[in-house]
Amino acid sequence: MSSLTMALIVQKYGGTSVGSIEKIKKVAERVIETCERGNRLVVVLSAMAGQTDALMRLSKEITETPDPRELDVLLATGEQMSVSLFAMAVKSMGYDCRSLLGFQAAIHTDQIYGKARIKKIDTDHILKELDENRIVAVAGFQGIDERRNITTLGRGGSDTTAVALTAALKATVCEIFTDVEGIFSADPNICTHARKLDRISYEEMLELASLGARVLDIRSVEFAKRFNVPIHVRSSFTRDEGTMVVAEKKEMERVLVSGVVSDKNEARITVVKVPDRPGIAFKIFDPVFKAGIVVDMIVQNPSAEGLTDLSFTVTKTQFQETLTLVRGVAQEIGAENVLGDQDIAKVSIVGLGMRNHAGVASKMFETLARENINITMISTSEIKISCIIEEKYTELAVRALHEAFGLGNEKEKD
Amino acid sequence: MSSLTMALIVQKYGGTSVGSIEKIKKVAERVIETCERGNRLVVVLSAMAGQTDALMRLSKEITETPDPRELDVLLATGEQMSVSLFAMAVKSMGYDCRSLLGFQAAIHTDQIYGKARIKKIDTDHILKELDENRIVAVAGFQGIDERRNITTLGRGGSDTTAVALTAALKATVCEIFTDVEGIFSADPNICTHARKLDRISYEEMLELASLGARVLDIRSVEFAKRFNVPIHVRSSFTRDEGTMVVAEKKEMERVLVSGVVSDKNEARITVVKVPDRPGIAFKIFDPVFKAGIVVDMIVQNPSAEGLTDLSFTVTKTQFQETLTLVRGVAQEIGAENVLGDQDIAKVSIVGLGMRNHAGVASKMFETLARENINITMISTSEIKISCIIEEKYTELAVRALHEAFGLGNEKEKD
Repeated sequence: MSSLTMALIVQKYGGTSVGSIEKIKKVAERVIETCERGNRLVVVLSAMAGQTDALMRLSKEITETPDPRELDVLLATGEQMSVSLFAMAVKSMGYDCRSLLGFQAAIHTDQIYGKARIKKIDTDHILKELDENRIVAVAGFQGIDERRNITTLGRGGSDTTAVALTAALKATVCEIFTDVEGIFSADPNICTHARKLDRISYEEMLELASLGARVLDIRSVEFAKRFNVPIHVRSSFTRDEGTMVVAEKKEMERVLVSGVVSDKNEARITVVKVPDRPGIAFKIFDPVFKAGIVVDMIVQNPSAEGLTDLSFTVTKTQFQETLTLVRGVAQEIGAENVLGDQDIAKVSIVGLGMRNHAGVASKMFETLARENINITMISTSEIKISCIIEEKYTELAVRALHEAFGLGNEKEKD
Repeated sequence: MSSLTMALIVQKYGGTSVGSIEKIKKVAERVIETCERGNRLVVVLSAMAGQTDALMRLSKEITETPDPRELDVLLATGEQMSVSLFAMAVKSMGYDCRSLLGFQAAIHTDQIYGKARIKKIDTDHILKELDENRIVAVAGFQGIDERRNITTLGRGGSDTTAVALTAALKATVCEIFTDVEGIFSADPNICTHARKLDRISYEEMLELASLGARVLDIRSVEFAKRFNVPIHVRSSFTRDEGTMVVAEKKEMERVLVSGVVSDKNEARITVVKVPDRPGIAFKIFDPVFKAGIVVDMIVQNPSAEGLTDLSFTVTKTQFQETLTLVRGVAQEIGAENVLGDQDIAKVSIVGLGMRNHAGVASKMFETLARENINITMISTSEIKISCIIEEKYTELAVRALHEAFGLGNEKEKD
């Protein structure tokens, strides 16, 4: 078969898929299988599960604040190990294969160590290896900046490597192999009726990713959306089709709500009765942002004459630090009190259909009310509605919403 | 102090010197000390002790015969780890430092994976980092070939990296830090009177290295000799001066014998009563060399009319394989028998003085005879005499020779 008629596929295997020597061999077998069906293959690998954490711990033994440049050099060994072991496995099975690291695959990034962004990929080297009928194994998560320093893309960066390579090589599809079967209408551990979605739009996936569905790294979805790269999220352990993440299409618009997702990892801080003056939000958030704390939802609403309540959420791990910072400015801005609550959860529904359908929000509120679940914060976007509720009601809320919007296996949603 | 007046020093620390996080910090302190005395520093590091073996074992779990290219990619992570951890340690102590891997330090090698030779080093990158007042930490043992594949230099390769960098950078000296205090006139574990040598010539060091003194890798000494690079072998654990390995000088010629060294790692094979015809040696050694077996001593002497005995030594680990191969050709060449003996040791004396002094060999034989030690093979070079004896007499032979040639601390040798 000439290489012109063969499909070029990029496959990415995460840390749990290559978590042991046995698993690496299994991945090699699966890659060879795909190859034998007449495809050319570029395989992106993460570090073996636990390896990146182990390296991080090692660096912390040297110093609490390891130099970012050197930390990237250290962390890059994780993918270097898995990619060389994988190439050995493929070769031992009689197929030609070469590993390429960031500098060899010419994955050029900016200079932000620890969370570099891919700027350009020179595909010459990869294409040459493909032309010589080799399977190409590319180390995920790593690149080089313009001075040939090693950079890493941050947690989940291998997804971005895979999507960027798919775009640069104009490959047919980017297959992301993971330990779940695809994207579900809700967490199957919470909702027994949760349904695997056949396809989902980039926009919906972005909302789901940012809402705590940890299947795909959010930056890889942004990248895929920008370059229109089709992603196929599927299981390392079965041959079943997973979920296609693709550009929005006409028929998708009929779907009102695609999924329900919950996140117990946030905590809420409320600044009570602040005089409603210009610059108040800046005064509250300036020290928080300067401390590098990521704020998720922000809601402000008037409480009494000339006064306002301002609530926002941060991750539970940054809760205490944030509370201390905000209490530090409370007096200066004349707030009556600063309250904190860690026993909260965020429940969200996501769907392209919301754009054109009124009533989705009220159906959500009604459903939660029927279950006697109190909503303490609400935040909406074009295709998402998030509610903060008491943590203990999380699973009840997810199941009720999943049922109410007809997402389950029993009742097809459209 | 201007950089023009500062000495440039290359230091190399081996695997035991960087065998733990604590030891890496100690090395960082020592490097900073040298820096504060007004020197510019390039530091070459090996992988942490045990790391290369661990990676090797991992590759063997994939396949008994790992692909050489991918094995080098895997092994190179060892030095990548130690060099990044070291740079972090130095930076955490307030000094600027950068790690450079083979491709960044531009260490160009040939394409022989697993035992590549350094062809050229482009020093631009290193010099630039030095000019910016950084300590430069270079990963030992690794380079890149002309197609930017990662190569490794083989066991002990970091010594060669350090010597090659010293030559390329025209540095003042190459300091090799190790777990011994320098080069001794004999193994201090065998000879309590063994004396640390202040200096030794490249030629003597080459003989000592090839005779089993594992302080310096032999290829690094060859490299140093070729480019006249002074090597200072010294201890990681003390501040004492070690041994300078330098070009032969006039005053050195007065030294008759520099050291005694023994090696229990060899075994002997004797082909008994072969018809003494042209091509016999070729027939015996052809299958042995083709199997990649390294033969050390070869001795042939006539046994009876038209017949000859041929003996040679190989390492004990390759003994059985070699014996099988040689027995396979024994009948074809009409040999009477093939004998093997593993209970042997090689005892050698090395010294530049032998060139001009007769009687050194006879003094060696006389000394061994006085101790009733039988010699079964003898091999000589310009500055070395090696005898094969029964293994159990090794320590006795070393002590007797050390005493006979006056090498000890009590009696100065010249």
